[in-house]
Amino acid sequence: MLEKTLRMNYLYDFYQSLLTTKQRQYMQLYYLDDWSLGEIAEEFEVSRQAVYDNIKRTENMLEEYEEKLSLFSKFEERANLIKNLKTAIEKDATAELILEIVDSLERLD
Amino acid sequence: MLEKTLRMNYLYDFYQSLLTTKQRQYMQLYYLDDWSLGEIAEEFEVSRQAVYDNIKRTENMLEEYEEKLSLFSKFEERANLIKNLKTAIEKDATAELILEIVDSLERLD
Repeated sequence: MLEKTLRMNYLYDFYQSLLTTKQRQYMQLYYLDDWSLGEIAEEFEVSRQAVYDNIKRTENMLEEYEEKLSLFSKFEERANLIKNLKTAIEKDATAELILEIVDSLERLD
Repeated sequence: MLEKTLRMNYLYDFYQSLLTTKQRQYMQLYYLDDWSLGEIAEEFEVSRQAVYDNIKRTENMLEEYEEKLSLFSKFEERANLIKNLKTAIEKDATAELILEIVDSLERLD
């Protein structure tokens, strides 16, 4: 569950601009502020089921966007390469090795 | 006009997965294969106006996606930093300077 929450936080971060205001509000409260479905339902004066359905639909949309655009997985790959790059520079690796990592970074786009 | 074609080619590259099959077909023929509106209309047995409207709508959608996700502008910034990074490595700049550019790259995400 923690893993899903983390993933949803990341996907939300990348794709929130593509969601409606209502979707953003629910996701924000549920995933970022840790409200329960019941608390959100009370706040918006709708049924718990309506909140649940909205959030489920939004989760599916976020996964579909990730399937199409891969922003999160590319971010992870890039973060990994940047980490390797920093280590190589700090350990004074050869320019050839460092440039190889930079090339991999370039190819990611 | 050339500038617009170039921009549409890039935006299409980044966001084509979010378009419908018909939108992709028209954009591909018009922008990548350089067909005229009339030729596309003939091929799909629709009016020239229908093709024009579809392409205009798609162009607007691509610009809206770019406004929301900035994939193209971030790509340009990243390409620029990677170019600077390569020059710094090739010119044997100090590790501090190189790491500064890497930090800028990291902050882009």
